[in-house]
Amino acid sequence: MNDKMIIAGREFSSRLFIGTGKFASNRIMSDAIEASGSEMVTVALRRVNIEDSSDDMLSAIMRENVQLLPNTSGARDAKEAVRLAKIARAASGIEWVKLEVTPDPYYLLPDPVETLEAAKELVDEGFIVLPYINADPVLAKKLEDAGCATVMPLAAPIGSNKGIKTRDSIKIIISQASVPVVVDAGLGLPSHAADAMEMGADAVLVNTAIAVCDKPSEMAQAFAKSVEAGRQGYLAGPGCVSETANASSPLTGFLRD
Amino acid sequence: MNDKMIIAGREFSSRLFIGTGKFASNRIMSDAIEASGSEMVTVALRRVNIEDSSDDMLSAIMRENVQLLPNTSGARDAKEAVRLAKIARAASGIEWVKLEVTPDPYYLLPDPVETLEAAKELVDEGFIVLPYINADPVLAKKLEDAGCATVMPLAAPIGSNKGIKTRDSIKIIISQASVPVVVDAGLGLPSHAADAMEMGADAVLVNTAIAVCDKPSEMAQAFAKSVEAGRQGYLAGPGCVSETANASSPLTGFLRD
Amino acid sequence: MNDKMIIAGREFSSRLFIGTGKFASNRIMSDAIEASGSEMVTVALRRVNIEDSSDDMLSAIMRENVQLLPNTSGARDAKEAVRLAKIARAASGIEWVKLEVTPDPYYLLPDPVETLEAAKELVDEGFIVLPYINADPVLAKKLEDAGCATVMPLAAPIGSNKGIKTRDSIKIIISQASVPVVVDAGLGLPSHAADAMEMGADAVLVNTAIAVCDKPSEMAQAFAKSVEAGRQGYLAGPGCVSETANASSPLTGFLRD
Amino acid sequence: MNDKMIIAGREFSSRLFIGTGKFASNRIMSDAIEASGSEMVTVALRRVNIEDSSDDMLSAIMRENVQLLPNTSGARDAKEAVRLAKIARAASGIEWVKLEVTPDPYYLLPDPVETLEAAKELVDEGFIVLPYINADPVLAKKLEDAGCATVMPLAAPIGSNKGIKTRDSIKIIISQASVPVVVDAGLGLPSHAADAMEMGADAVLVNTAIAVCDKPSEMAQAFAKSVEAGRQGYLAGPGCVSETANASSPLTGFLRD
Repeated sequence: MNDKMIIAGREFSSRLFIGTGKFASNRIMSDAIEASGSEMVTVALRRVNIEDSSDDMLSAIMRENVQLLPNTSGARDAKEAVRLAKIARAASGIEWVKLEVTPDPYYLLPDPVETLEAAKELVDEGFIVLPYINADPVLAKKLEDAGCATVMPLAAPIGSNKGIKTRDSIKIIISQASVPVVVDAGLGLPSHAADAMEMGADAVLVNTAIAVCDKPSEMAQAFAKSVEAGRQGYLAGPGCVSETANASSPLTGFLRD
Repeated sequence: MNDKMIIAGREFSSRLFIGTGKFASNRIMSDAIEASGSEMVTVALRRVNIEDSSDDMLSAIMRENVQLLPNTSGARDAKEAVRLAKIARAASGIEWVKLEVTPDPYYLLPDPVETLEAAKELVDEGFIVLPYINADPVLAKKLEDAGCATVMPLAAPIGSNKGIKTRDSIKIIISQASVPVVVDAGLGLPSHAADAMEMGADAVLVNTAIAVCDKPSEMAQAFAKSVEAGRQGYLAGPGCVSETANASSPLTGFLRD
Repeated sequence: MNDKMIIAGREFSSRLFIGTGKFASNRIMSDAIEASGSEMVTVALRRVNIEDSSDDMLSAIMRENVQLLPNTSGARDAKEAVRLAKIARAASGIEWVKLEVTPDPYYLLPDPVETLEAAKELVDEGFIVLPYINADPVLAKKLEDAGCATVMPLAAPIGSNKGIKTRDSIKIIISQASVPVVVDAGLGLPSHAADAMEMGADAVLVNTAIAVCDKPSEMAQAFAKSVEAGRQGYLAGPGCVSETANASSPLTGFLRD
Repeated sequence: MNDKMIIAGREFSSRLFIGTGKFASNRIMSDAIEASGSEMVTVALRRVNIEDSSDDMLSAIMRENVQLLPNTSGARDAKEAVRLAKIARAASGIEWVKLEVTPDPYYLLPDPVETLEAAKELVDEGFIVLPYINADPVLAKKLEDAGCATVMPLAAPIGSNKGIKTRDSIKIIISQASVPVVVDAGLGLPSHAADAMEMGADAVLVNTAIAVCDKPSEMAQAFAKSVEAGRQGYLAGPGCVSETANASSPLTGFLRD
């Protein structure tokens, strides 16, 4: 299946993005990233020393084919987010940034107004911006118009493992987007990731579900397979949902002959 | 992952069962079965000539490692089902039977009373019986007690592609079963199959979703992956669903230092 | 709104049936029944002394317009259920019986086979039989054919307060039934009762949700209103569900003139 | 039940707000408003001649106890919305405004950024502002902080009749709000309105479901009852949802004595 995804000119074979929070150790994280086959790994800027190539966390993440995606987690407004992004770029030379602006410390939901403001400024400054947002189709379109490389609507509150609780809005976002749509936050099981891909999402981001389970590497591999399965199912042109039964085995003939 | 399933003493590596109705041609069906990696393929007795090894449909199905599973589709009561099963065994020597008793021609829902009666008789006659049932935990237990090799509760009406609409009942069936639980009917997308496996089902049966789509072989492969993903996710010990957010990237430090 | 329901020749103005288990006191139960306006109240045979008109529980239940509906709760098979029903009729002269056969003490789910057997015998003996069943369309039809006065499919396990978790099956039961369909068990909130009525159910039975809450009489009244609301909404011919928006306030004219 | 709702110092006995689009005639609309008992009726500014007390639509709406709520439907950005609101106030003297900013003509979803900007300006200008928004908890908090009198998150796209598809977000909005939360858009059946009230919403707004059905007055009354039922159920302190059964009728004693 030749089905590459392109973001900002870079080609990705894997449609599973991985987050790096909450792993019990760098070793466990490294193994899970390896098992996932992910080519896009996000990391909180303040948790690594990007300048120092011997930084333990960084070396646990990095490998060939992986695009490091610094994020602005912890930023409460546009100003903080922009500052964080600039610090990271200055230190690392990486222009990619996952934009997160979350004023509320309890649910960590994104701020639509500050996110849009920060996105505009970061795009102007030459960043490749992937914003984390509520599943708001109007906001998604505005961010796309502002030059963002993707939109990343949430499926459910971060870390909740609930699956896609914003289904109708995500469908609309997908139907209207001309940049890749990456479903982010709340995917708790492989089936949730497959579900997102079957809806036509271009990729998914998973962190908690892999980091906080009994066997992170196994779970990472399970998510990798389910993302492939969902994508392949989407491309295979599924049939319709129907109310009435459709016999798999037609009833004619035989018994009443 | 060494995770074999055993039914009636036979070991299965694949947890995806395939039905053979509705394919556009035997060639397409054969390719889809191959792509699925399935080791259990069900076929309506009256659609093949089991005695004749040159039968086109049969030769499209058969391959090494595949257990052929004749079904009694079309039977409207216990008597018809038992008669069908016996005809098939006499012709083929196969003792396995997927027991389907569906008096209603519109939704093709199974009859609990006639199914139990037929199951008892077929078990007595030495058959390996896999009954298709409504998601009824009490009936499932009775069929297990009667000596059935599995129970096969439906997720949704056959051919509806709706996914798991009987979730609570299937959870109870799984929690009480000591024979394998195979979720049957209504699974329309790879994510639905993963969902069933994550709930702890032992296997799933898929037919319409693969046979009636644009690219059956692709879809078969997608289901195969999703079944593996769901099973692997289940075994990896997923975390809990929670109401409040859990930051993937802890907020301490850095910004407010 | 002249919209009476008739069961076995008796006319009911209220479509809310009430159960009498779990109330903190007979006084609280009596007030809740009064507030509910219910005309059909079910009671476990073994909990009242039906012969004794001074029995406290019985006098808390009885009032003008209320049909007492003895139930066979506790019966584990057909034989026990039939025995219980006969004892009750002998003592009270009441021919109505809510048939419950629940072999499993944990989920209290009904047994389809034993329920059908008991129903046939009780109908033969002249009882007016209202059987509690899993949401199984084939079984519902069999019970109707056996002469039952209603069918009472469960929405969710009894006492779970989950609402309608068997939606697809209940829809099919309603579409096929020629006796009244009473949705029983699992309705936890007034909206759940309205939901059942909007689906076309003829009545609902509620017990736990009213008995186990902070203010049973208030909750009973709330359920009474919601049952009326749901029924009235059903009869008012609701519009369709649609994917795309339909402006309540058309966008033409004005602003761009 | 003494349970008044207060918005901007005005007391409301009814928690059902009504919209006036799509009715087949003014007469049908007038009857439906009467049947609903609503005390808050929203109307598109450009559809009535507010200055002219003989305007047919206006006279169909107005009655004692009704607060007329002009809305800005049709506005595509903050500037248009503010202009519309000012025209209405100048003509009518009414300071209340339902703020709607919907750049997208297909789904009519609200624009978070323009809505916030318009809300701030209208509050500054002395309006009582009730903004229609996506179910975005961060935005809801910002609007509350900006001085809005309520927040009105959508349940589903307007006119879709889908019910509450933004459940998790609305729960969070309710848990964080100190102004009334009015669930708006997408409520298609009485049970949906009861559902919103049981979640703790302060009120609901309904238009399409009443205007586009076979019997609008009947449906209006059904919604009125269901809103009361849901509110009363909420205040009655419902019990918990549980996984396992809780027998309504305890199984001890009797049969095995």
